[in-house]
Amino acid sequence: MTIDGQATVGVGLLGCGTVGSAVARILLEQGKVLAARTGIRFTVEAIVVSDVTKSRKWQPPLDLLTTDAAKVVASPDVDIVIELMGGVSPAAELIDRSLTAGKQVVTANKELLAWQGTELLQHAADSGTRLYFEAAVAGGIPLLRVLQLSLAAEPVELVAGIVNGTTNFILSSMAGDGTPYVDALATAKSMGYAEADPTADVEGHDAAAKAAVLARVAFGAELTPANVYREGIVGLPTVAFAIAQELGCTIKLLALVDRHPANGAVVARVHPTLVPLEHPLAAVNGAYNAVYVEGPWLGDAMFYGLGAGAAPTASAVVGDLVAAARGIPAPLPRPERRVVGTMDVLSARCCVVATGSDKPGVLSLVDQVFSTQDVSLATIAQSRYGDGPKIVLTTRAAPEHRLRAALRGLRDLDVIDAVDARIRFFDSENHDNPAEVGTPS
Amino acid sequence: MTIDGQATVGVGLLGCGTVGSAVARILLEQGKVLAARTGIRFTVEAIVVSDVTKSRKWQPPLDLLTTDAAKVVASPDVDIVIELMGGVSPAAELIDRSLTAGKQVVTANKELLAWQGTELLQHAADSGTRLYFEAAVAGGIPLLRVLQLSLAAEPVELVAGIVNGTTNFILSSMAGDGTPYVDALATAKSMGYAEADPTADVEGHDAAAKAAVLARVAFGAELTPANVYREGIVGLPTVAFAIAQELGCTIKLLALVDRHPANGAVVARVHPTLVPLEHPLAAVNGAYNAVYVEGPWLGDAMFYGLGAGAAPTASAVVGDLVAAARGIPAPLPRPERRVVGTMDVLSARCCVVATGSDKPGVLSLVDQVFSTQDVSLATIAQSRYGDGPKIVLTTRAAPEHRLRAALRGLRDLDVIDAVDARIRFFDSENHDNPAEVGTPS
Repeated sequence: MTIDGQATVGVGLLGCGTVGSAVARILLEQGKVLAARTGIRFTVEAIVVSDVTKSRKWQPPLDLLTTDAAKVVASPDVDIVIELMGGVSPAAELIDRSLTAGKQVVTANKELLAWQGTELLQHAADSGTRLYFEAAVAGGIPLLRVLQLSLAAEPVELVAGIVNGTTNFILSSMAGDGTPYVDALATAKSMGYAEADPTADVEGHDAAAKAAVLARVAFGAELTPANVYREGIVGLPTVAFAIAQELGCTIKLLALVDRHPANGAVVARVHPTLVPLEHPLAAVNGAYNAVYVEGPWLGDAMFYGLGAGAAPTASAVVGDLVAAARGIPAPLPRPERRVVGTMDVLSARCCVVATGSDKPGVLSLVDQVFSTQDVSLATIAQSRYGDGPKIVLTTRAAPEHRLRAALRGLRDLDVIDAVDARIRFFDSENHDNPAEVGTPS
Repeated sequence: MTIDGQATVGVGLLGCGTVGSAVARILLEQGKVLAARTGIRFTVEAIVVSDVTKSRKWQPPLDLLTTDAAKVVASPDVDIVIELMGGVSPAAELIDRSLTAGKQVVTANKELLAWQGTELLQHAADSGTRLYFEAAVAGGIPLLRVLQLSLAAEPVELVAGIVNGTTNFILSSMAGDGTPYVDALATAKSMGYAEADPTADVEGHDAAAKAAVLARVAFGAELTPANVYREGIVGLPTVAFAIAQELGCTIKLLALVDRHPANGAVVARVHPTLVPLEHPLAAVNGAYNAVYVEGPWLGDAMFYGLGAGAAPTASAVVGDLVAAARGIPAPLPRPERRVVGTMDVLSARCCVVATGSDKPGVLSLVDQVFSTQDVSLATIAQSRYGDGPKIVLTTRAAPEHRLRAALRGLRDLDVIDAVDARIRFFDSENHDNPAEVGTPS
C-alpha cells in the first residue's frame, strides 16, 4: 500500500510497557521523521495490552488499544508484529502465530531467543518470513546486525560483552570508591538501575541469556542458557577491587563466548573477570554496555552504548522494524555448525584471594597444593588489606578442572580459613594470533 | 552458478597492494572458512596489477595476474568487482564501467567516495546495481552498514570520529608523556604509522574525506571535502596537552558532523578538539579509530577498532563482498535532503593559549577584546609552563565568526606576542536533549 507515494506498513504492537510506549510514541509522533529518513510510513494498527482502562504514564490513543492479541496477529492490516510483552508465555505463542501467518516479527525478548532461538528461527524460515531481535542484547547498541551482516565472513574468535547495566553499575561503584557490594546494590536500586528483586541481574542469569544469543549470532552455536557457565557478582568482596587495581586491572562481569583453540568447540560463560585497565572494556562504566569482538582479519573491535532504557531499546526495535519493511535479512541458522563445549575445556589465568594465618611456611603450603594439580603460580603474597590478612596469588594459565581441584585443596588446608574469591583474567591466550594476510599499513 | 550445492560468485580484483593482497589471500586461502560461514564460494577470476612481473611480498598465482583491467570489468565471469587501486584515476573510470556493466562494486576508495559519491551512487542506482564502501571509513570497524541499516530510522544528531590513525598515534604520544610534535611524528614514521610525506594525515585531508563520507551515510548530506572545515594538528604546541589535562580533557583530532539546532543544516569539520577524559573517545589511543554517534532515541553509542592496516581493511572489504553476494542493500541517496552549512553557523566553547607579557592589567585587556565581540570568558589566567608565561582562557559558547574576530583582536594587542592555539571543546551544547519517549528502565 502507498500513501502520498510512500510505502505504508501496518504494525501491530504487543505490549505497552516502558519500551512499548516508547516505540508507540516514535511511530505515532515521529512518523514524518521516519518517513523522511526511510521513505516508509508506518501505521500503528493496534496496541495489545492486558488492561485497556489502566492508567498509564503516556496514554496511547484509546481506539488503538485492545486486549485481543490473537485478532491483531491475524489481522490482514498488520504486516509486522512487534512483541514487547516479555516473558515466555504468551509471547512465544503469539510470535508463533504471527510467523505462521507469514508476518515478520520484531522482538526484544531475550529469554525467548535464548531458550527457544533454534525453534523460532526455524519456524520463521519455514514460514518464509523473518524474526528480528536486535534489541534482545545490549539494548540500543546496533550489534547483532553487525555480527550477522558485516562480520558474516569473519571467523570470529571471541565475543566479550558487558551486557548487564545493573551489575556494571554496581561493579563501577565498587571499583570507583570501594563501596561495598550491599551499598552499591542499594544505590543501584534507588537510582532505578536495579529491580527490587535483582536476582536475574546479580546472579548473571540476564547476562547468560544474552551470551546464548551472542553465541548463536556470532558463532552459529545452538546453545541455551543451560549451556552457559554462570557466576554472578554476589559475594564479590570489596578487597578484590583493591587487589585488581594492584594487578593493573578492574573487575567486570563479562559474557564471554569463544572457541576452544584445539577442537573449535564454542564455550559460553558469564563470570567476574579481571580486565586490564588499558583494555577498552575497562573504561565502560556505569549502566553502559559494550561488546568486544576479536577476529583474525578484523583484529579487535568494540561496540559501546546504552544497553537498557526505553529510548535506546526502542531505537533498536525501530531499526529492526525498518529492516523488516525493507527486507533486510534477519539472522538465520548458519551453514556451519559448532560443537558446544563446557568450561572444563578452557584454560585460564586466575587470581585467588584467601583468608588465613599470616605465618612462616604458609606460602609454600599453598604453592604445594597448586603444584599437586600441576598448576604453576605466577605470584603469591601475604598482604594486609582493610579487613585483615589475605593470601593473594595469581596462577599461570591452567585447565579449569585442575584449578577447581586446587581450590578444593586450598580450602582443606588448616592454615586457610576461607577462599574469598577466585577471579579469572581476561586475556587472549586461548586465541589464535591474527592471520598473516598482509603487512599493516 | 553452484558448485557442491553452494552458490559461487566470480570476483575481479583491481589492485594488489597491501589491502589487495590481503583480500586475495583471504579469498584464495580461506575459501572453505568463508563458505562454511556464508554458504557462498567466491572464485577469484583475475587480479589486475600494473606490472605482472613485479616482485611481491606475497606472490599471487601467476595465471590470475593481468594488466588488462578493461577486460576484467567486462568479463561475464566477474559478478563483483573489488576496486583497491586507490586514487581517482583510473579507479573512477573502472568503477563506472563496472556499474554500467551491471556488476556490483566493492571499494575502499575514500577519496573517490568523498569527491564523487553523489554521481557514483546515482550511477549504481541507475544501473540497477550496488556500490559498497564499508572500508572507506575507519577500516575494519563495521560502521557504515550500521549507520545505513541499523540506524536508518534514528534521526542522528552527531557523528564524531577519530578516523585517522596517524594523527591519533601522534596526539596519544604527545598527551601521554609530553613528546613534542616533531618527535611524535618521527616515531610514527619509524613505526610505519605515518608515511614519508604525512601531509594528507597531519593536515586533516584524510579525515576530511572521511567526514564527507560519514555526512553522506549518516545524514544524507551531499557534501564533498570542499565543504568540510579543516584544521590539522601541525603546530599544536606541547603546552596545549598540559593545559588540556588541567581542564580535565585530552586533545583528539575529530571528524565532526552535526546538524545546526536552528536550521538543521549539516556541518562537517575536522579540527583538534578538547575531549573530556571521561568521554569514551578520550580513551581511544594509538592507531585505533572510533566513531561516536548521538541520536535522540539511541542516546550515545561508539564503534571502536582498527582503522587501517591490511587485515582489518580486508575484513571490511570481504564483509562488503558477502553483502553484495547476498543482495544486502548498499547505501543509497537518502529520501531526505539536508542543507549543508558552514562553520560560521556553529557555536563552540574554546580554549585559547597565547604568549604575552605577564603583568598587571593584561587579563582585563584580553577580556575587553572578547567582550567587544560579545564573547564571554569562563576562565582566564596567566600561567607559567615549561616554555614561558602563557595566557590561558576558556570562552563560553560563542558563534564562530565572533570568536575569529576576537582572536584577531587578541593578536593585535601590544601585550600579546602570539596566539599559540585555539582549540574547541567537544560538547553537546548544540544538540537537542534525548527525546522523551518513555522512562529509562
